[in-house]
Amino acid sequence: MKKDVKNVSMAVIRRLPKYHRRLKELMDKDVTRISSKELSAMIGFTASQIRQDLNCFGGFGQQGYGYDVAELYGEISRILGLTGEYNTIIIGAGNLGQAIANYSNFEKKGFHMLALFEKNPRLIGLQIRDVPVLDIDELESFCADKKIDIGVICTNKESAQDVADTLIKLPVKAIWNFAPADIQVPESITLENVHLSDSLYIISYLLKMNEME
Amino acid sequence: MKKDVKNVSMAVIRRLPKYHRRLKELMDKDVTRISSKELSAMIGFTASQIRQDLNCFGGFGQQGYGYDVAELYGEISRILGLTGEYNTIIIGAGNLGQAIANYSNFEKKGFHMLALFEKNPRLIGLQIRDVPVLDIDELESFCADKKIDIGVICTNKESAQDVADTLIKLPVKAIWNFAPADIQVPESITLENVHLSDSLYIISYLLKMNEME
Repeated sequence: MKKDVKNVSMAVIRRLPKYHRRLKELMDKDVTRISSKELSAMIGFTASQIRQDLNCFGGFGQQGYGYDVAELYGEISRILGLTGEYNTIIIGAGNLGQAIANYSNFEKKGFHMLALFEKNPRLIGLQIRDVPVLDIDELESFCADKKIDIGVICTNKESAQDVADTLIKLPVKAIWNFAPADIQVPESITLENVHLSDSLYIISYLLKMNEME
Repeated sequence: MKKDVKNVSMAVIRRLPKYHRRLKELMDKDVTRISSKELSAMIGFTASQIRQDLNCFGGFGQQGYGYDVAELYGEISRILGLTGEYNTIIIGAGNLGQAIANYSNFEKKGFHMLALFEKNPRLIGLQIRDVPVLDIDELESFCADKKIDIGVICTNKESAQDVADTLIKLPVKAIWNFAPADIQVPESITLENVHLSDSLYIISYLLKMNEME
């Protein structure tokens, strides 16, 4: 990383996971190098966009050679912080919370799922993969001697802000919110929302547009 | 809608679901009108951004009055196609598929979840809310006499492209993909991806950046 990553716009950063995913696919197929043109055909960004994006980090490509797939993958992993370890807890052990606890790939990338917390007694005591579902009342004592990096909110809309406030007090450094609510957090807390309906409503918009054509 | 919505950039369109959600919250609190300044404080976009966004659709605000909350909500619903009805099927009845079938709010917005399809015999026969889990082998016969608008892919990465190909042949008009894979679809198919890891990797990026400060 030859340039200061801090000056890179979030628009570029938000494209990096896509590069990361496609490069992994190439590595799985034993592809060792790729041109920005080939990467462009694969990923759907223009070759010039790709060169511009990757130049933000000092430029990995070599004229006439292209990109070294493994090196680029490694660099992007490092830029994205995927070489770190993150203690993660999930609040809400319904289907969505269980789905997230089940992603073994997150574990492999350093996101350690320590526990799910739940108030529904029918779910408390379950194990999702090897992640226990604990009583929400145990949240503070469980976290007392641990540094928690990420709290995932998988509750309903109504509980989301209360859960966020509890997580902030623990404290957590980041909140990954799946509840269909716009929660408020202090500036010091990293907040990332996954609003499923936002994505679904884009589909209905595009379907309507197509019908009008 | 006084202007041609087709010329509006997707960046603006992708902000509309957020307006939609916040306006609903205002309506629930019996707020009938709001200025772009107040909306800005609530939503986190600048007042000038909000005026610009909403002007793309002909402008709903009135100088000195602000926006009529219910009118603006209705217009945005219409623009997003939320006044339509969409037959929806889900492939994969694991935790994530079940979570999506469980969102009664999608049903209320016109996304009718007709069935989940699954190959795991332990899941076939279940009912999620009132949505049946059917054998994946029944997919074509089930859909033969129905117009399916949206197919949701909730399978693993390995099956995602095969499932997409099957959905395209049914045909469906749109695919909502939750599998951590970049699937290929013809241009005529609307594709919207929810790559959960993309969002998680932005968290690790931001956590790493904060640590470097």
